[in-house]
Amino acid sequence: MHYFDHNATSPLCEVARRAWLEAVDRFPANPASAHRWGARSERALEEARERLAARLTVDPHQLLWTSGATESNNLLIHHVARSGEGPVWLSAIEHPCVLEAARYWLPHRHHLIPVTRDGDLDLNWVADRLKTERPDLVAVMAANNETGILPSWLTVAQLCRDHGVAFFTDAAQAIGKLDMKDLAIADYFSGCAHKFGGPVGVGFLRATGPLLPLLRGGPQEGGRRAGTQNLAGATACVAALEHRLSNLEALSPDQRALIRDRFEDQVKSAIRGVEVLGGGRRRLWNTSSLLMPPVDCRRRWVVRLDKLGFAVSTGSACASGRETVSHVLRAMGHDGVGERMLRISSGWETSESAWEELARALIATAAEFGV
Amino acid sequence: MHYFDHNATSPLCEVARRAWLEAVDRFPANPASAHRWGARSERALEEARERLAARLTVDPHQLLWTSGATESNNLLIHHVARSGEGPVWLSAIEHPCVLEAARYWLPHRHHLIPVTRDGDLDLNWVADRLKTERPDLVAVMAANNETGILPSWLTVAQLCRDHGVAFFTDAAQAIGKLDMKDLAIADYFSGCAHKFGGPVGVGFLRATGPLLPLLRGGPQEGGRRAGTQNLAGATACVAALEHRLSNLEALSPDQRALIRDRFEDQVKSAIRGVEVLGGGRRRLWNTSSLLMPPVDCRRRWVVRLDKLGFAVSTGSACASGRETVSHVLRAMGHDGVGERMLRISSGWETSESAWEELARALIATAAEFGV
Repeated sequence: MHYFDHNATSPLCEVARRAWLEAVDRFPANPASAHRWGARSERALEEARERLAARLTVDPHQLLWTSGATESNNLLIHHVARSGEGPVWLSAIEHPCVLEAARYWLPHRHHLIPVTRDGDLDLNWVADRLKTERPDLVAVMAANNETGILPSWLTVAQLCRDHGVAFFTDAAQAIGKLDMKDLAIADYFSGCAHKFGGPVGVGFLRATGPLLPLLRGGPQEGGRRAGTQNLAGATACVAALEHRLSNLEALSPDQRALIRDRFEDQVKSAIRGVEVLGGGRRRLWNTSSLLMPPVDCRRRWVVRLDKLGFAVSTGSACASGRETVSHVLRAMGHDGVGERMLRISSGWETSESAWEELARALIATAAEFGV
Repeated sequence: MHYFDHNATSPLCEVARRAWLEAVDRFPANPASAHRWGARSERALEEARERLAARLTVDPHQLLWTSGATESNNLLIHHVARSGEGPVWLSAIEHPCVLEAARYWLPHRHHLIPVTRDGDLDLNWVADRLKTERPDLVAVMAANNETGILPSWLTVAQLCRDHGVAFFTDAAQAIGKLDMKDLAIADYFSGCAHKFGGPVGVGFLRATGPLLPLLRGGPQEGGRRAGTQNLAGATACVAALEHRLSNLEALSPDQRALIRDRFEDQVKSAIRGVEVLGGGRRRLWNTSSLLMPPVDCRRRWVVRLDKLGFAVSTGSACASGRETVSHVLRAMGHDGVGERMLRISSGWETSESAWEELARALIATAAEFGV
């Protein structure tokens, strides 16, 4: 099996597995318990928080553990909805968990920042509108889950800072894949462990100020998130992140992007009519989002690749098989092409030869399909 | 170390650990992914749901996975708040995650069902009030986390059924410790894995009807809870529950309660002025909630026991060290005695000799304290 679906979830890496096992063995007690064993668990949890904070260059007190990026993002949108009355701007290509939370909590207060055909934000829209309006929050994700495109979130964050406007970036797809040394400029950011080889069910949120809890009923996480803290998950999350960042030192994002680019060149030169979404733009090194020639993508390319032993996706895992045109493609002006999209997302240890095999499989499939 | 704090969290049991590892190894893909590996993960997740449903004697489609009982309970209270306008009745001894969610989501709609001094519900209050009022929901927990008392939830559930009123029981402390063959009478019930030896970060909610999601942004769990599904957590949860229920076949709850009762008799006969909360009532076999003679409980008994190698609690873990008088004790009319409370909660494999050692340690401490 060649697994090219890391943007949906990245299998648990060995160091995270070991960290998880070590934590459940060494720290069996509830971090909220007052006895010695509880105190040990609490120290281990806080140590994990400090290590995460160090990697993300923020104050550990500003980080809270959640059950995942979906919870982090819902928590933040609920907080913003309940703590102000002003407008909130979101990029049109945010993850559904940001957009749907905004539709629910901010039905009349949210506005979508348009994107250009190549998948970046319309920066003029932001700059112009900031002249006259002061939103409660501006949200631009750090990396798009479907296309790997890196929107100009940092430019927007700086504009927001200049105007005294709070800024949020959903960094679930970026953390662990890129250095993210500028992340601390965002008043709020979120991420989750399973996108970089940690366990499912562990996420985090950075907030520079107080947060209204969405899950209530306990003083955990500084009163910002009730519920027994997932110590083993937190330590495994941090172990995975540290491991991934050391992977990136061994082979840089730019070097990794070259391998992906060679794959794309090979496919484009062999199959007529293939388009790489955001091909001309800065993207995550692991993602290749291909618009294939018009045959039913879901029924054909993915299924055929599946049979050949390659796991790829047609869009975000959340949306797979459930929406015909992705909101990301629609925002980029690609109406009606959803079925032709293939999302290929490699991992940290995917070899160049695996990419080459995938290219050969795509080319063989195209020949079989007569395109 | 003698761990007597299972009501705060029960250390991961070996079968759950193995199930978790097997799941992360065999099912690395996202259950929402459309390819073959995703489909395998989805089947494994649904199999875990079916096994859980079989143990709880409900339809698997009515069960959804969450990140824990706190989330399950918040999700339900939010749903009730947004889908009706009628009153909601909650027992005064519910877990804080039910009470605080109700204070937030139902500020003017919730009413507390009073409890008697021995910790049961005032059933007359419920029966009388049902004659004239029809609440949107009645909530009575299946077992109290602080005292182990089993309130008459089933009687209330039957009353509710007779009056066509929806009933909810938070069964987090009961599931895995008791057979719970009547649980399906509740329209809604919740629980979580780590209270019976599964991993932290996994919970579930039974709902017979539709649910408004609290976490939004994906079609997972039938649209009732967005976010990548925690397959390894779910399978480990089920493995732990099945293991605990087989433990109970080997030694029944009644047999287990006798061991705890002997401990209490020993302590009461040796230390003057010890009171067992709910001592005359049906309780969880693993819980002994003692009101010790008046010395500062938090500073003394717990710390001394800690030094002697016994992990016990002063109340619920969520509240430990943060509130002086527990709302449960207050509801039972025990004002101002919070500091004297010791919550002792054993596990499925706690031996009789461990209970005896704990009794000796308490008696020695009492002698040392001169009471």
